[in-house]
Amino acid sequence: MKKTLACCLALLISAHVSHAQQPQTPRLEDLHDKTILVFTPHPDDDVFGAGGTIALLNRNHNKVIIVIYTNDDKGSFDPEMNSQRLAQIRRAEEEVSQGILGTPKENIIWMGYDDGMLEYAPQPKLTEEATAIIRRIRPDVLLSVDPGEWYERWHMTDHRMAAFNTIDAVRAAEFHLYFPNQRLQQGLQPYKVPEMYFFYPSPQEANYFVNIDSVAELKFDAATSQVSQFQPAASKYRPDWDPEDLAKAKAELRDLQTRKDGHFVEAFRRSTGFNPD
Amino acid sequence: MKKTLACCLALLISAHVSHAQQPQTPRLEDLHDKTILVFTPHPDDDVFGAGGTIALLNRNHNKVIIVIYTNDDKGSFDPEMNSQRLAQIRRAEEEVSQGILGTPKENIIWMGYDDGMLEYAPQPKLTEEATAIIRRIRPDVLLSVDPGEWYERWHMTDHRMAAFNTIDAVRAAEFHLYFPNQRLQQGLQPYKVPEMYFFYPSPQEANYFVNIDSVAELKFDAATSQVSQFQPAASKYRPDWDPEDLAKAKAELRDLQTRKDGHFVEAFRRSTGFNPD
Amino acid sequence: MKKTLACCLALLISAHVSHAQQPQTPRLEDLHDKTILVFTPHPDDDVFGAGGTIALLNRNHNKVIIVIYTNDDKGSFDPEMNSQRLAQIRRAEEEVSQGILGTPKENIIWMGYDDGMLEYAPQPKLTEEATAIIRRIRPDVLLSVDPGEWYERWHMTDHRMAAFNTIDAVRAAEFHLYFPNQRLQQGLQPYKVPEMYFFYPSPQEANYFVNIDSVAELKFDAATSQVSQFQPAASKYRPDWDPEDLAKAKAELRDLQTRKDGHFVEAFRRSTGFNPD
Amino acid sequence: MKKTLACCLALLISAHVSHAQQPQTPRLEDLHDKTILVFTPHPDDDVFGAGGTIALLNRNHNKVIIVIYTNDDKGSFDPEMNSQRLAQIRRAEEEVSQGILGTPKENIIWMGYDDGMLEYAPQPKLTEEATAIIRRIRPDVLLSVDPGEWYERWHMTDHRMAAFNTIDAVRAAEFHLYFPNQRLQQGLQPYKVPEMYFFYPSPQEANYFVNIDSVAELKFDAATSQVSQFQPAASKYRPDWDPEDLAKAKAELRDLQTRKDGHFVEAFRRSTGFNPD
Amino acid sequence: MKKTLACCLALLISAHVSHAQQPQTPRLEDLHDKTILVFTPHPDDDVFGAGGTIALLNRNHNKVIIVIYTNDDKGSFDPEMNSQRLAQIRRAEEEVSQGILGTPKENIIWMGYDDGMLEYAPQPKLTEEATAIIRRIRPDVLLSVDPGEWYERWHMTDHRMAAFNTIDAVRAAEFHLYFPNQRLQQGLQPYKVPEMYFFYPSPQEANYFVNIDSVAELKFDAATSQVSQFQPAASKYRPDWDPEDLAKAKAELRDLQTRKDGHFVEAFRRSTGFNPD
Amino acid sequence: MKKTLACCLALLISAHVSHAQQPQTPRLEDLHDKTILVFTPHPDDDVFGAGGTIALLNRNHNKVIIVIYTNDDKGSFDPEMNSQRLAQIRRAEEEVSQGILGTPKENIIWMGYDDGMLEYAPQPKLTEEATAIIRRIRPDVLLSVDPGEWYERWHMTDHRMAAFNTIDAVRAAEFHLYFPNQRLQQGLQPYKVPEMYFFYPSPQEANYFVNIDSVAELKFDAATSQVSQFQPAASKYRPDWDPEDLAKAKAELRDLQTRKDGHFVEAFRRSTGFNPD
Repeated sequence: MKKTLACCLALLISAHVSHAQQPQTPRLEDLHDKTILVFTPHPDDDVFGAGGTIALLNRNHNKVIIVIYTNDDKGSFDPEMNSQRLAQIRRAEEEVSQGILGTPKENIIWMGYDDGMLEYAPQPKLTEEATAIIRRIRPDVLLSVDPGEWYERWHMTDHRMAAFNTIDAVRAAEFHLYFPNQRLQQGLQPYKVPEMYFFYPSPQEANYFVNIDSVAELKFDAATSQVSQFQPAASKYRPDWDPEDLAKAKAELRDLQTRKDGHFVEAFRRSTGFNPD
Repeated sequence: MKKTLACCLALLISAHVSHAQQPQTPRLEDLHDKTILVFTPHPDDDVFGAGGTIALLNRNHNKVIIVIYTNDDKGSFDPEMNSQRLAQIRRAEEEVSQGILGTPKENIIWMGYDDGMLEYAPQPKLTEEATAIIRRIRPDVLLSVDPGEWYERWHMTDHRMAAFNTIDAVRAAEFHLYFPNQRLQQGLQPYKVPEMYFFYPSPQEANYFVNIDSVAELKFDAATSQVSQFQPAASKYRPDWDPEDLAKAKAELRDLQTRKDGHFVEAFRRSTGFNPD
Repeated sequence: MKKTLACCLALLISAHVSHAQQPQTPRLEDLHDKTILVFTPHPDDDVFGAGGTIALLNRNHNKVIIVIYTNDDKGSFDPEMNSQRLAQIRRAEEEVSQGILGTPKENIIWMGYDDGMLEYAPQPKLTEEATAIIRRIRPDVLLSVDPGEWYERWHMTDHRMAAFNTIDAVRAAEFHLYFPNQRLQQGLQPYKVPEMYFFYPSPQEANYFVNIDSVAELKFDAATSQVSQFQPAASKYRPDWDPEDLAKAKAELRDLQTRKDGHFVEAFRRSTGFNPD
Repeated sequence: MKKTLACCLALLISAHVSHAQQPQTPRLEDLHDKTILVFTPHPDDDVFGAGGTIALLNRNHNKVIIVIYTNDDKGSFDPEMNSQRLAQIRRAEEEVSQGILGTPKENIIWMGYDDGMLEYAPQPKLTEEATAIIRRIRPDVLLSVDPGEWYERWHMTDHRMAAFNTIDAVRAAEFHLYFPNQRLQQGLQPYKVPEMYFFYPSPQEANYFVNIDSVAELKFDAATSQVSQFQPAASKYRPDWDPEDLAKAKAELRDLQTRKDGHFVEAFRRSTGFNPD
Repeated sequence: MKKTLACCLALLISAHVSHAQQPQTPRLEDLHDKTILVFTPHPDDDVFGAGGTIALLNRNHNKVIIVIYTNDDKGSFDPEMNSQRLAQIRRAEEEVSQGILGTPKENIIWMGYDDGMLEYAPQPKLTEEATAIIRRIRPDVLLSVDPGEWYERWHMTDHRMAAFNTIDAVRAAEFHLYFPNQRLQQGLQPYKVPEMYFFYPSPQEANYFVNIDSVAELKFDAATSQVSQFQPAASKYRPDWDPEDLAKAKAELRDLQTRKDGHFVEAFRRSTGFNPD
Repeated sequence: MKKTLACCLALLISAHVSHAQQPQTPRLEDLHDKTILVFTPHPDDDVFGAGGTIALLNRNHNKVIIVIYTNDDKGSFDPEMNSQRLAQIRRAEEEVSQGILGTPKENIIWMGYDDGMLEYAPQPKLTEEATAIIRRIRPDVLLSVDPGEWYERWHMTDHRMAAFNTIDAVRAAEFHLYFPNQRLQQGLQPYKVPEMYFFYPSPQEANYFVNIDSVAELKFDAATSQVSQFQPAASKYRPDWDPEDLAKAKAELRDLQTRKDGHFVEAFRRSTGFNPD
């Protein structure tokens, strides 16, 4: 595999190379007029993990596109809830939530897998689908849950699968001989993703922090607009908030948002690609 | 399953019911301004099995859409051939071939599966994909290889799988609870296919014959424009015909074309749907 | 495989052997105090296919046990229906329906697979589960949809899979080395099913007819008590019938019920087992 | 797929073509110095289905090679039997049995799949393995269980899978682009099987009968040397026969052996290949 | 997914929260009259990993239930051993072993998967089965092998799969929309496991130590009662110990048992659930 | 599972035991007249990861056998490349490359899986195949990519799968009840691999370093003889090097080769087996 040399060498030299490279690249939050592709397992991980950064990117006139692996149709404690209805609720909430962050609803792509079942989606079909999206969108920057985090510890299913599948698709997208019919039949040329930022990194590996002070409240608004993800709606669905509950939820989010040097930040593991050469 | 009553009853009464219904329905070759959806395992079965009928339908200003399950990238005896190249050749040949029959190339949908491997495509994903096509195109008539033929005798793989998968998708398309995310996330409403004609029927079961006298030569032109499917190009690829070989191939096709009462015909098994009620 | 000799020989001699055997066996409808195991793909096929016979068997103090492969949670045209609710409805309807035929609800075993997805249930796990049921119940007679019918023509999925899986389980149940942990860990000894009757046979192969005149109305009551399987409830769910609709539905059932020599009958293909030895 | 034209045409013209061809081909039982490849699901189907023919072929100095899909390790009623031991017994019995028919034990290839589980063998890996055998042995004639018989009625598993897989491998073997690494890495060139004879045909489709009068007793000896397949050893294993039981078993075999015009025959469905071109 | 917020927040604040919570919860070894559910890949990991703790829990009148994923039927060097027999031996040994620790044999649930093949068990069926057990038993505490340990390094198969599957089932058990038929057809309500202790943790992550001084000898007795797991019986099976070998084996166990501050301990990673909210 | 005791104990005592053992074992680079089995995902990882060590082992008259999981037929940026041709190129390059290191081409075993698709190879078939190789070759030492490295972070596919599968096969090879037909039908006896060295270890876990000063140039020659793996041939294939490019590539390799105490070394994680006892 072509990757091998580059990759094993990169492991040996990653320390100094990465230091050398970083000064030359503009900061993520300073990008403008770029295409940003965000892969998320469920319609809330994008907001919790990178909502502030997404708001900043939209503010800078980047084109942000959200790809959501699953329809999130199982995570409710409400005994009256059913999956068809929950999927509808989650979809509507995500559209509101991303709207607050500045992403138009036409930029949300739903892959449509069932909640909690991504691990059992047919492989390598799932990779093929994500590869087609990458080759079509041709993003300048890709955001995803971190395949380096120990998700397998808690989440054998969606998070781990989304993370691995996205990175597999990044590799496959580079080589036209992966899924060659995409070139022939859909006109999709190979594409090399130049930069990746992984949200939900393990604390020891976070190597990139975006200051979100200026959009933090926007993020908390976006997060809490996904009402069904919070109590009391998680246990007995209602479409809106009691003002007091809302205030409390936001306070909790504020309290728990990662901070660095006194600022609200979002943590990432930055990587310059699968095949650096 | 809703189908059960209708279906088992239908089995008991199919003889007289089908007689009763047929007079009221216009003949397939007389349709005009309808949408016709053709599912074919490889880019030549549509021509061999229903090419004359397709030509008639196009002549009558119907919108004919061809869905091709596989890329047909293995069936060559040429030792220098490779799969990527063969897929390109087969695609180009199909576009020429359907063009002769009057189908514009934009109306050809390639599902992109590997030749001979359809049996191993992930299930029920394959059904889900065909269901989405049916729900989007919403055809007045559907053509497909016959799931009732004993394809399993010779073709465990593509033909049988294409036939079964198409009929499974016809059933699934009717009920919104099959693949419910298609309604939610892609806006695809359930759809009931009113009429189906199966080509390549078993001789005992063919119950519908379309006179193709007026387009027979067009059909033989279309068939032979798929040069790589015939000798000598099958064994040593060349993109064109030696005139003598071409004449011989067409003569053979003429000779072998099904005839009925002195006319060229294409044989079908007609069915008024999975859920007749 | 032990079966081979018996089986291939049986094929050669089946005609006269079966004639010889039949006089010695009591008629199905005359059995009493036996255990009868019925496998059905959905909670209505048992009623449509063998409801009259089940009523007769219950009347004769046999213990009838119904095993239902799927929860039948997709077959509705009602756009407001969801799968969780439909499964509840279908379960309740089946209990009423079998109650009319004399089967107590404790005798209904739900295997719990999703409607239309039995084909994709994990194999050979599905066979293992049916085998365990057979080894536990140890039926004198087994009823099932007919694996000899051309279900694959219309029903790639549930019907075919239920038919094949049941017959596979009948074979596996005989040999303790199939799923040997059932003997070790659940105390289930091998068991040979002595007689099988397949409902929904192909017309040419039906070889056994049960006169159901005396319970025909019971059968139509049972069938129509599954309200959601019929119009108008299939398209817009309501739990009860408009009296006029009900009368019409029953009339239609009466009209369509198989008749032989002026009597209502249910048709079966009878078989004396996988390994007649 | 290259096959299509040849194949669908062949269906239409098979009647007269096959009559035309047969006079020119030598009879199966008259072949000499040829390579014959026999695929069998279990180590006894070859003997029951074609043992006499195999004896004739060996007598004529053909090289007969037997490929056995499964190890037949489940078909015993003996409660003390275990699978590891049964596989050993079956292997030894097959070697004796084929030895009686003249096949040396070096000519027996065991594919090693578990009894009753061939349906669940990984696909298309199973086809790939059978394809490699065909490309390596390059047989003049191939014998197999009949994929046209309705095995699915009784044997969802091994027989049907063996039949379908063999015919799939026959097709794949012709085209170097199926499993192309076999050519590159194992030096296996594509190969077209010229003639096939299917044993265990359906009675209506048997079209070829081999007179085995001269080797019938050899066949019954070979069959009964597989002691564990018969009673009483099937229920309580013993390695040898009580003479009386043996005489009775042979008498039964003699009685059940297919006869035609007063002769012992073995019935086949003959086919001149997947791609007659 | 509902879990997301709670979970990612939990990662950020886990340090201080866990300190805060622990004082309020009674120690594992002090529980009484509770239900404890132990998942183990093989019938010996429960004893090696948590046998002392199990003995303490039984002594305190808790109800301990052991769920064993596999039958452990491959791990013998004895060339005369077969899988059916080994499964019997392992089952009997486990019953003796748990009996020594105070667990009655009725409390042992065998899931019945083949040794070394758990990775290939059908998914998500395996999760569904474990979920049903959790929803039925409704344990106050769950013990399992640690999904956080790097089992994949050594044990791609059973240990990793058992660990991941158990934690997946813990999550699924909480939400009624996972495997909804369990509620409908088996009356199993959702259930949230309040506390989990993982045995076989990685040394860096062990955060909970149970003093087993008072039951250490009981544990060594229980462990060595699984004779077939030790030499010499592992290489040549015998059902009992030579007294000298036994003494040596126990000495070795004593020597290797984890110690902390001069006491025999069992190490765990404690977790207060998947969805702490 | 037999492994459990040995293994969990080993974890606890690995530090001092490994120190104790190492003095008694000869150094890897001092072995002679031994059999060395190397498993590699692609035909270049063996050279990059252990090429110097392989050269030393060949120089010492060991028999080195290379097993290559995939055909490496996708990793090219050349838009004119196709998979069949790339597989040929990679095979030829590997033969040259290993020839430089002293391994004859007859000692290279190609398992033949498609590049990037090893993750989707049928399991446990893949383990069964690797197990058969180990049982047949019976190596004194096994080399493989490291299953302990976090390959899943970057390579969900081939590297991780090759690593895990090899270690799974090492375990299975020890026990005759794993894949028991290999003993019965292929005469393959169980075999315990005594020593393993994993290349591409994580830096923190490398515990064994082989000085390759004397063969370093040979390694760089071998590596660069795989022309298609480097630029410019990776982007536009040419079979040979421009001398200047070659010099630059070698300089880069020299620069990146791991060094320790001023020497070129290859780093490994050494392990004395799955079941140390």
